[in-house]
Amino acid sequence: MKQIKMPNDNTLEKMEELLNVASDYTRLKILFCLLDGEKCVSSIQELIDASQSLVSHQLKVLKDAELVATRKDGTRVFYSLDDGHVKELISVVCEHATHIKD
Amino acid sequence: MKQIKMPNDNTLEKMEELLNVASDYTRLKILFCLLDGEKCVSSIQELIDASQSLVSHQLKVLKDAELVATRKDGTRVFYSLDDGHVKELISVVCEHATHIKD
Repeated sequence: MKQIKMPNDNTLEKMEELLNVASDYTRLKILFCLLDGEKCVSSIQELIDASQSLVSHQLKVLKDAELVATRKDGTRVFYSLDDGHVKELISVVCEHATHIKD
Repeated sequence: MKQIKMPNDNTLEKMEELLNVASDYTRLKILFCLLDGEKCVSSIQELIDASQSLVSHQLKVLKDAELVATRKDGTRVFYSLDDGHVKELISVVCEHATHIKD
């Protein structure tokens, strides 16, 4: 892993926002659903057993923070993790949470 | 990266806590200070230009969440990142924050 210097305030504030948005039970479940590929709202809703309005709201929050990206296909919208960084973030926090619980 | 299944509620709650504790400007700066190795409170204080009481308080919060570990050497206490997961977490969030700003 390359050496990282102290980032500037803008980057630190963006990091704060990313971590803050990710630190939510429902949003974490949505991010896990997207680990194996893009999905539409109804599939996510089914997988995490939550209302469509809740899932849609949380997807908007995740998209605004650039943790999730969208792709339109006709009238359908598909959601995916923004990029590999988000996949790695979820993966490493899950590993640490599991590791320190043991 | 190995496939990750939806974790149980305990793990999701621990993940929420880890992300929530990390999502703080001062605590992020402290974690960055520790990327290149363990340090005592006064070194951290100097590096991030904050009061000793603030740094001590935030180090306690980080330690309680198991993001930071301690080692005693006589009367001195050295702080370090809890393990490689924390280093990877800080690194990947920083990369994403820098990437989406551009």
